[in-house]
Amino acid sequence: MSIDYDVIIIGSGCAGLAAGLYTSRAGFSTLILEKEMMGGELMNRQLIENYLGFADGVQGPELGSAMVEQAMNTGVDFEIGVVTGIENRTGYKVVRTDSQNYTCKGIILATGAHPRKLGVPGEEEYAERGVFYCATCDGPEFAGKAVAVAGAGDSGVDDGLNLQSLGCKVTIVEILPQSKATKVLLDRVYANPNMEIKLGTKIEAVIGDEKVTGIEIQDVATGEKSCLAVEGLLVCIGLVPNTQFLQDLIELTSMGQIPVNEKMETSIPGIYAAGDIRENSPMQFATAVGDGVTAAMALGQYLRSL
Amino acid sequence: MSIDYDVIIIGSGCAGLAAGLYTSRAGFSTLILEKEMMGGELMNRQLIENYLGFADGVQGPELGSAMVEQAMNTGVDFEIGVVTGIENRTGYKVVRTDSQNYTCKGIILATGAHPRKLGVPGEEEYAERGVFYCATCDGPEFAGKAVAVAGAGDSGVDDGLNLQSLGCKVTIVEILPQSKATKVLLDRVYANPNMEIKLGTKIEAVIGDEKVTGIEIQDVATGEKSCLAVEGLLVCIGLVPNTQFLQDLIELTSMGQIPVNEKMETSIPGIYAAGDIRENSPMQFATAVGDGVTAAMALGQYLRSL
Repeated sequence: MSIDYDVIIIGSGCAGLAAGLYTSRAGFSTLILEKEMMGGELMNRQLIENYLGFADGVQGPELGSAMVEQAMNTGVDFEIGVVTGIENRTGYKVVRTDSQNYTCKGIILATGAHPRKLGVPGEEEYAERGVFYCATCDGPEFAGKAVAVAGAGDSGVDDGLNLQSLGCKVTIVEILPQSKATKVLLDRVYANPNMEIKLGTKIEAVIGDEKVTGIEIQDVATGEKSCLAVEGLLVCIGLVPNTQFLQDLIELTSMGQIPVNEKMETSIPGIYAAGDIRENSPMQFATAVGDGVTAAMALGQYLRSL
Repeated sequence: MSIDYDVIIIGSGCAGLAAGLYTSRAGFSTLILEKEMMGGELMNRQLIENYLGFADGVQGPELGSAMVEQAMNTGVDFEIGVVTGIENRTGYKVVRTDSQNYTCKGIILATGAHPRKLGVPGEEEYAERGVFYCATCDGPEFAGKAVAVAGAGDSGVDDGLNLQSLGCKVTIVEILPQSKATKVLLDRVYANPNMEIKLGTKIEAVIGDEKVTGIEIQDVATGEKSCLAVEGLLVCIGLVPNTQFLQDLIELTSMGQIPVNEKMETSIPGIYAAGDIRENSPMQFATAVGDGVTAAMALGQYLRSL
């Protein structure tokens, strides 16, 4: 039988584009499938200052478009389609989309993850105007300001400390009566006069004018409501990997992430995962690009050995 | 005692600059030590087509300079100095250079590796004019041409297959009487009419005019000399990690590389390794950048927990 592509990459964010650039340059026919917008999360972002190579930063859509064009220049094909399933057959694999089926020899999964949202009034409205989801990416913009962090798990507390070290006054708001974060991290929060944790406290709404000016909170036990004046709200209540379509195919963690080894190999030979969907991803553009390259090089070795 | 820096990064190539960008943005005082030229290997390269973000590629020195400037813009300090040793003391670390000692809380090692050279006449002269050391980076330039590969280990054979898939006619030259490469890879070479392996064959010289036109080879057993007409020579006889100064401090592999886990942690708490010096590095600019970011984020967590 004839196989449609050597490589199919699912997702056209940083990780998928990096992978496609490398598989295509290595001489493998490559298709990238994207469900929405080519370029991924970058296309939703403003100034990116932490992707190395741009002295004064670069606008997200500008960077994303350059990446798409770079991959296209190497001969990668792009198609829009929602992947509904993957089948691992003897000697080849099938990728099913809502409109078509494709066959290939190797697959790189790069569908990313999205931050879990609070789902409260004002959250959507103030996205990029005070509400943010990545302390490492966007924290420096809030240096010296009062900021709230939603979520007192390890990542919320660590990101809170991170913001504090930028000079922020940080209030961490947790709906549960206790924090699940590591003690040593919590100790540092409690010892710091510029940090506070409000446990058993629910965020009810984000309020503001042009930008965020505060959040409405409620004490879960007493029902008492109050307002906390902040210029930023970092939402840190978990990430949702976009791996729902894989759950019958591949071993996933309890969080829905894909476990990989250092070559980005999944539990199925010839199927790799790269970027925010893999377990323990640092969730950065640069690490997603590195993952994509790593996966593509390992897949190249695999294909040459078939 | 007062500590000079939160973080010292050794090496200012991609990995070191990415790490510095992240530690500095996270609020940690950061010094990058470089022994020669800031920007590392990029400064020696011409068109870089496989670093994602530049639709038509970017000149190495232009990219390297932008990366240095980007790190400087965040407040990273740079110093020129050859590191002669590191001491891990209780509560802090000492980095010794040929001119000065510095104290710090955490270290990221990012000194890179250099390809082992053949050491034959013409090799230096024709660097970037036909002699190359990275099939993935420079291979596409030789698409469709006759190319020799020095070294029939796994990497030489895999890179030979890689070049072949770009349409090259490939001759792999190995000084030993047998190849150490994986059988399945060798089988593919022997089955391919566009590939040949010359075992027990020594490369004596690289010859050419403006560019490489061939290599002089000698049959080790018979002493017979001949000339092989090629437009490119890929030297694939191993990489030498720049880790000599670490051998008393840290556990290294037999190849001199630094073993790390997925957070780029070495065997010493607070000391991380990133880029080409770490074991199993894919040896790409993009993966070095990803490593630097990963190491910096893990070191940030470590420093906040002290």
